[in-house]
Amino acid sequence: MIRYEKKGECSYALGLTLVFELLHFKKEAAKRLYIHPKMLRDETYSKLVSLAKSLPIPVIENNEKIFNALSEKENVMAIGEFEKFDRPLPKGNHLVLVNPMNQGNLGTIIRSASAFGMAGIAIIRPAADIFDPKVVRGSMGAIFRVPFHYYESFEDYRKDFPGNTCYPFMLQAKTPLQEAMIHSPYALIFGNEAKGLPFPFLSVGMPLIIEQNDSVDSLNLDNAVSIGLYHFSIHC
Amino acid sequence: MIRYEKKGECSYALGLTLVFELLHFKKEAAKRLYIHPKMLRDETYSKLVSLAKSLPIPVIENNEKIFNALSEKENVMAIGEFEKFDRPLPKGNHLVLVNPMNQGNLGTIIRSASAFGMAGIAIIRPAADIFDPKVVRGSMGAIFRVPFHYYESFEDYRKDFPGNTCYPFMLQAKTPLQEAMIHSPYALIFGNEAKGLPFPFLSVGMPLIIEQNDSVDSLNLDNAVSIGLYHFSIHC
Repeated sequence: MIRYEKKGECSYALGLTLVFELLHFKKEAAKRLYIHPKMLRDETYSKLVSLAKSLPIPVIENNEKIFNALSEKENVMAIGEFEKFDRPLPKGNHLVLVNPMNQGNLGTIIRSASAFGMAGIAIIRPAADIFDPKVVRGSMGAIFRVPFHYYESFEDYRKDFPGNTCYPFMLQAKTPLQEAMIHSPYALIFGNEAKGLPFPFLSVGMPLIIEQNDSVDSLNLDNAVSIGLYHFSIHC
Repeated sequence: MIRYEKKGECSYALGLTLVFELLHFKKEAAKRLYIHPKMLRDETYSKLVSLAKSLPIPVIENNEKIFNALSEKENVMAIGEFEKFDRPLPKGNHLVLVNPMNQGNLGTIIRSASAFGMAGIAIIRPAADIFDPKVVRGSMGAIFRVPFHYYESFEDYRKDFPGNTCYPFMLQAKTPLQEAMIHSPYALIFGNEAKGLPFPFLSVGMPLIIEQNDSVDSLNLDNAVSIGLYHFSIHC
């Protein structure tokens, strides 16, 4: 039985939208296309199959089991198997996620990073697995467009990009986001969903706070990230 | 067997954090406190029970079934039963959600609306059920603090608050958010997760767009709402 494994070499794009994103934007990683035996043999089907054959990758049309194993209750008609990929981060503005643990948040964050044109995402371990099919799904395919790279520590990231101005987002920071002096290239740094960034980040670069009243502990991580990305994108 | 019912009169706050929020900020709606038989009889327990008795509401300590029925796999030690509440929106700045359907988004949005000090949330039907225990949970208790009211149509909301300047957020709008002329009190209007706002909203008030590149269809609804709330909160 095929199942997704964190330590395995492959992952899966579930559903037509994601499969098209994979075949268009990360074709070099695509390995196999599975078509559900019950998928209508319509125009979309023809497009999909000819795209797969142009790469070329094998098209498998008689394996209903993989749909049952991977897609749970959802009505998935195509699955794209791909090899996990990794490459160095390109230079430019980065989003740095320190120990993000929530798969749902991670997918949404990748989507926002893509929407606001980040050059790449640095993810500091321990962290959620970006290749988990749920994260791939949550990203709506943005995972195939935005470069990302895992680092063992924040220091490792800093060594690679000493020229990026660091902006750690912390509830303990004194400077409100809207008063930030923005220098490019920048690194917007966010901590774990539950704990935020560790205290020592207060002495890294220019810590910022998204001001809010004290009725809630803090914003949801992906909401905070989107606010930061938006603000920097329009003031830069 | 007790289950949550959309048409019923009651809902449930699951877990200690939510129960405390309920008993502090919406005490008039609280009806019953259930304590899990296995909850440690510690300081938190004593606080909880004395808070419940001060209201007063009954404390039920021997009903393990309700925990199995309502809390699925989670490790919930207390449940607060409350009567669904409804009241007119207070005057001030409003968030207006037109046909929001996703329960997870709705909880997060309530939390952000609370964080950025909205006077209230107008929800235009058809819409997700704000009292579903999953939404209550997702709001982290903000549902007990931010006033909200369901309307049958957007026009009904307008009749109640003709003085609020309307800002519909739409991908078809021409004015970027950062160029908005902000007039208080305002109504920030967002559409359904999949479809956005219907086209006629282009002629309502001052439509705004959150600019982003075309690599993704659009931001996640709760992310877009948080960006709008943040921007208005700092420029007002």
